[in-house]
Amino acid sequence: MSDPQTDRTEIAGDDEAGDFALPQRLFDDVLDAVEAGDAAALEALLEPLHPADIADLLEQIDGRDRRALLTLWPGVMDGEILSELDDNLREEVIATLAPAQLAEAISELETDDVVDFIEDLEPERQAEILAGLDAADRVAVEKALAYPDYSAGRLMQVELVRAPEDWTVGQTIDYLRAAETELPEQFYHIVLVDPRMKPQGYVQLGRLLASRRDVRLSDITEDSFRTFHVEDEQGAVAYAFNQYHLISAPVVDDDDRLVGVITIDDAMEVLDDEHEEDILQLAGVGSESELSDSVRETMRQRLPWLAVNLVTAILASVVIGLFEETLVRIVALAVLMPIVASMGGNAGTQSLTVAVRALATRDLGSSNSWRVIRREAVVGLMNGAVLGLAMAVVTMVWFGSPLIGGVIAVAMMLTLFAAAVGGILIPIALERMGVDPAIASGPFVTTVTDVVGFFAFLGIASMVLA
Amino acid sequence: MSDPQTDRTEIAGDDEAGDFALPQRLFDDVLDAVEAGDAAALEALLEPLHPADIADLLEQIDGRDRRALLTLWPGVMDGEILSELDDNLREEVIATLAPAQLAEAISELETDDVVDFIEDLEPERQAEILAGLDAADRVAVEKALAYPDYSAGRLMQVELVRAPEDWTVGQTIDYLRAAETELPEQFYHIVLVDPRMKPQGYVQLGRLLASRRDVRLSDITEDSFRTFHVEDEQGAVAYAFNQYHLISAPVVDDDDRLVGVITIDDAMEVLDDEHEEDILQLAGVGSESELSDSVRETMRQRLPWLAVNLVTAILASVVIGLFEETLVRIVALAVLMPIVASMGGNAGTQSLTVAVRALATRDLGSSNSWRVIRREAVVGLMNGAVLGLAMAVVTMVWFGSPLIGGVIAVAMMLTLFAAAVGGILIPIALERMGVDPAIASGPFVTTVTDVVGFFAFLGIASMVLA
Repeated sequence: MSDPQTDRTEIAGDDEAGDFALPQRLFDDVLDAVEAGDAAALEALLEPLHPADIADLLEQIDGRDRRALLTLWPGVMDGEILSELDDNLREEVIATLAPAQLAEAISELETDDVVDFIEDLEPERQAEILAGLDAADRVAVEKALAYPDYSAGRLMQVELVRAPEDWTVGQTIDYLRAAETELPEQFYHIVLVDPRMKPQGYVQLGRLLASRRDVRLSDITEDSFRTFHVEDEQGAVAYAFNQYHLISAPVVDDDDRLVGVITIDDAMEVLDDEHEEDILQLAGVGSESELSDSVRETMRQRLPWLAVNLVTAILASVVIGLFEETLVRIVALAVLMPIVASMGGNAGTQSLTVAVRALATRDLGSSNSWRVIRREAVVGLMNGAVLGLAMAVVTMVWFGSPLIGGVIAVAMMLTLFAAAVGGILIPIALERMGVDPAIASGPFVTTVTDVVGFFAFLGIASMVLA
Repeated sequence: MSDPQTDRTEIAGDDEAGDFALPQRLFDDVLDAVEAGDAAALEALLEPLHPADIADLLEQIDGRDRRALLTLWPGVMDGEILSELDDNLREEVIATLAPAQLAEAISELETDDVVDFIEDLEPERQAEILAGLDAADRVAVEKALAYPDYSAGRLMQVELVRAPEDWTVGQTIDYLRAAETELPEQFYHIVLVDPRMKPQGYVQLGRLLASRRDVRLSDITEDSFRTFHVEDEQGAVAYAFNQYHLISAPVVDDDDRLVGVITIDDAMEVLDDEHEEDILQLAGVGSESELSDSVRETMRQRLPWLAVNLVTAILASVVIGLFEETLVRIVALAVLMPIVASMGGNAGTQSLTVAVRALATRDLGSSNSWRVIRREAVVGLMNGAVLGLAMAVVTMVWFGSPLIGGVIAVAMMLTLFAAAVGGILIPIALERMGVDPAIASGPFVTTVTDVVGFFAFLGIASMVLA
């Protein structure tokens, strides 16, 4: 009931925020125990921790310490800890285990966790693990793996509680008591099915408990009932859980028969992953990026995006090259031009991010896209006017030239307008073409803002100051 | 059981992704009904929708249509729909309601939803609404409002089910049946309390249902039990729900007495909001940004950040100004210099985003920060070397100058190194100083990459090519 994470007073010394980060002292004590080779002390430190915290600890210490720790305390080879680990570390740890050890470790997991666990492993490893499972679990896991990646079929668990729709509360409770040992570890609803196994509604356990034994299940079903199809995309399922405040929902196959159930904790994890992916992709970092990745892996994720940006930057430079003559004559233009491009880039990122998020949350659709585009365009123009004027004043003071000041003001207005419109149109267009706007929008928008920025500023300057 | 959102075949025509976005046809039909003033048709379209979808629809149509719709169908004035609306629209709608109407609309909500609903309203409006609630609810809501913003006390609901720890399963079920009408709408656990009302553990409803009547509650409690304090920060609570896979958790006051319960759906919403805020803040968009904001509101959110960026861009230009002489002599430098700055900016954003996310997920702490900084530095140097070499080749071909090619290669290596190190050190430093790294890191990192980029490229060029 009291452990190092939840006990507020205990962590207060290390971490004022009381924000559930692992206290530094724990790391120190664990590493001391590992160094001293003191298995008993190590076990005493780790045993009370939640598997998710042990996984975090393993991810945060360095590779040498981790290997020493794993050798000293084989208790780590526990299914729950393994399933909490980052993918790359999980593979590292699994590689050290004998098939039998591994099979035992994962035998305690629900089928959805087993699927999550083995879906990224190599086929031989998968086969080894499947062979170690008992027959019913193996069939369930193999079935789940047959569904597409990121589908509801991979997310659902097959362990569920169902009842014929004509049962009463009393019948259901008697059935549950008799089935005690075979019930899922966590469940929140009883799914009512017709004789063809088609889900007809569900009953909340609280409602079941509060009802008299002679009440029919079909009289106490919940309005929130929704079903998903095994091939529904996990992101859409998570969105629906969040939108409709679902706690659990049945999953059906092509014949509308009940095959599994998805619970809110799984949906919460998917939502969390999708958000993380969006943030990382907007920044040009591979969506699989993890803090424990190696230098080589990190380079592999980031270099391609930087290379794309090098190409767009060269393109912008080609535009500058068109105005070499003007630049030689008026060097102030060379000094000022990065300001226009930089402001365009920032304004473009603002519109782009709002658009990408609104598309992800289904808030931006054909019903309101023109209104939002109009809003962005007006905001772009007005921000451009305000900042352009400010910059004109700075330019006059700095270079003593009202003319250059006027040029930069107009160029900033045009650029911020282009940034705003490009920032919203490009993600919408990519989405319509079936491309993930979080990944692809950035380079396009940067190209637009750089090219427009340099072209407007240097082009107008060439005309006006020639 | 079948409604426009969940029926896959029905929406397939409008939206191939089947992703729960509202179908365009629904908008068309609703707007047609509003225009025709056909209240019955409108009601027939809206009645079957989930409150969250009605709220989305209201957010996506334009102001004029919205007002016409609200006049035609007062059914919108429902507590659940109101609590799903964006803040700015909610205020717009509430302003049109009589206090009695409003009080009735929200009387059906749980206390946590009422708190969420009224916490942002003006004090007079709050008082009006509170006056319309029944006494018990009013006390609960007033108590919640006394807790700090974004605290667990504001997130929790006071409706919960508790039982003395010495009760048996049978006693508990009998109690629940007797209390039927007073139970919370949704609950997942029975909280066991000692005579001083201190929570001692909890029992899952599934476990309760499956156990014999003579089993003691204290023998079937769950390991996952954790309590929160009323003043715990909501973000930390959401993190703990996600980290420890919690479904519900009791909240205690300073005396460790049970005062409420937080459920996973509330935690999921907080997590969702926090992610959204991080993404928007990283892009320099106010965290309160909503798609239905006006032009004026949108400007207010974005202009300050652009102004900060204008200052950092001017700073970078001052650096360029130091090398005016060199630029006049070798105009190729003016053409190429934005490339160095742009690559630095992108590389900086990559490191920065990874650092901000890792801090938010408690994955980056003092135990591993040096290792991560080292990794970023090495990746920055290596990416800089690869891309710098590529750019050197481009420069030689373009400008026929191996010397300028060499200068840009070295400048890119230095800049990407500075970007990587700045991108990780700045968020860590801000976090230690108690500043939200998601908001403040961007401008600092941009300044570093711009200044280092221009200084390295032009400075080395001045030395080598002088």
